[in-house]
Amino acid sequence: MADKDKFTIVVFSGDLDHALVAFMLAVTGASMAMEVSMFFTFWGLNIIRKNEGGIKSKGLKRKMLNFINRGGTKRLKLSKFNMLGLGTWMMKQMMKDIDMPSVDELIKMAHESGVKLIACTTSMEMMGLDKDSFRSEVDSVAGAAYFLNEASKSKVSLFI
Amino acid sequence: MADKDKFTIVVFSGDLDHALVAFMLAVTGASMAMEVSMFFTFWGLNIIRKNEGGIKSKGLKRKMLNFINRGGTKRLKLSKFNMLGLGTWMMKQMMKDIDMPSVDELIKMAHESGVKLIACTTSMEMMGLDKDSFRSEVDSVAGAAYFLNEASKSKVSLFI
Amino acid sequence: MADKDKFTIVVFSGDLDHALVAFMLAVTGASMAMEVSMFFTFWGLNIIRKNEGGIKSKGLKRKMLNFINRGGTKRLKLSKFNMLGLGTWMMKQMMKDIDMPSVDELIKMAHESGVKLIACTTSMEMMGLDKDSFRSEVDSVAGAAYFLNEASKSKVSLFI
Repeated sequence: MADKDKFTIVVFSGDLDHALVAFMLAVTGASMAMEVSMFFTFWGLNIIRKNEGGIKSKGLKRKMLNFINRGGTKRLKLSKFNMLGLGTWMMKQMMKDIDMPSVDELIKMAHESGVKLIACTTSMEMMGLDKDSFRSEVDSVAGAAYFLNEASKSKVSLFI
Repeated sequence: MADKDKFTIVVFSGDLDHALVAFMLAVTGASMAMEVSMFFTFWGLNIIRKNEGGIKSKGLKRKMLNFINRGGTKRLKLSKFNMLGLGTWMMKQMMKDIDMPSVDELIKMAHESGVKLIACTTSMEMMGLDKDSFRSEVDSVAGAAYFLNEASKSKVSLFI
Repeated sequence: MADKDKFTIVVFSGDLDHALVAFMLAVTGASMAMEVSMFFTFWGLNIIRKNEGGIKSKGLKRKMLNFINRGGTKRLKLSKFNMLGLGTWMMKQMMKDIDMPSVDELIKMAHESGVKLIACTTSMEMMGLDKDSFRSEVDSVAGAAYFLNEASKSKVSLFI
C-alpha cells in the first residue's frame, strides 16, 4: 500500500489571520487523506497556548514577555486592521455569519482528523514555556531537525 | 512528452512588497517554461481586486471592511516604511528609475505568459467579494483542496 | 554516490525574529548534510548588509532609503513588540540566557558549515546596493531564475 502524501507546515506567525489560514489548509489536507504536521515556532506558539491558567515562566524577562505576549486563541489579533480590537471583533463576526469555524474549533477539528501539532523546543526554551503551557491537542515537542526531516519527505511544505 | 514543472504560490499578504516579489517569481517561472499557479487568499485578494468600481458587498460589516480595505493595485502599500504614503511613493519611483515593471504591469505580464490567477473561495465569502470584484486577468476561483492538489504535484510551492 | 538533499530558503523578511528562524533552519539543515542555499531578497538584504561602513548608494531616493533602512545584524528589530527597542533588547538577553547564538554568530556558523548565502540582484538594483554592501560571508549574487532552478531541485523550499 502506498504511503500517504505528507504535508508539513511551519507556523511562525501568531496572528488570527495566519492561524485561520494555517488550520484551514491543515484540515483540508487531512480531509484529502494527507498526513499533516504543523510545527509551531516563535509567535506561532501563541496559537496553541492555553487560554486559561497562570504564567509560570521563570525569570523576570520571560515573565514580562509572557505578560505582554500572553497567547491563547482568545487573544489572537489580526495582523492588519486590528484597530484596538474592533477589526478583530468584526472579522470574528464575519466568520460567524458564514458559519466558518473559529480557530478554537479548527484546532479541535485538526486534532480529531489526525493533524499532528508539534511545538518547537528552541522557541519554547527561549520564551520560557514548557509542555504544560500548551492545550491538550498538542501532540509533542520537537526541534528543527525533526521538522526538516518531515519536510524532506513531504509533497508540500509551507512557512506561514 | 514530459509534463512541465509546476510552481504554485499562495499569496496571503496584500502589501506592495509581497505583491512585487510574488509576481516577479511567477513571471520568472513562466519564462523558464514552468506551469505557474497563484492562489490568492485573505489580504492577497487585495492585489487582484479592481482599481475602479463601487463596493457592492452585502451587509454592514462587509461594507465597512471593504471601505477600509479597498484593494486594487493602486492602493497597495509597503509592509514597512509606508510613512503615510511617502515610503511607498519613493519605492515606486525607485522601481521606475530601473525600468522595473509595476504590479499592474506584472499582473498583465503574468496573465499573458500563462500564469493562472486563482481567487480563494473561502476568503471571498468571508470578505463578501464575488468574481466581479476581481480584474479580468483572474482566471478562476477555487478552494483550498484545489490548491493542495496543485501543490502536491508541484516542484516548488511557496506561501508569500 | 547519491546527491545531497537540497534545502532552499528565500529570506524576504528583514526582522530579527525571521532572521533567527531562517538561520536556525539553515544551520540545522547543514548539520543534517543537506545542501542549503539562502536567497536574500527585499528586506531580507538587511540581514546580510555590513554593520559598518558608509552609505554609498547613488541618487537621493536611494540615499534616503538607506538612511532609514540602514541594515546590518546590529540594527535588526523584532517584527512585533519592538517597543522602541526594549522588546528587541529583551529578546537578545533571553537568547543569551539560554546560550543561543546571535544572528551574527549564526551567519558565521552557516557560512562555515557550507550554507550558500546569495543576494538577489533585482532587489539590490532597486535599493541601490552593490556586492560591497554585504558581509564577507555572502557567496554570490543571482536572480530569481537561479533561485527557481535551485528550488526545483530541492526537497524543501521555504519563503520566510
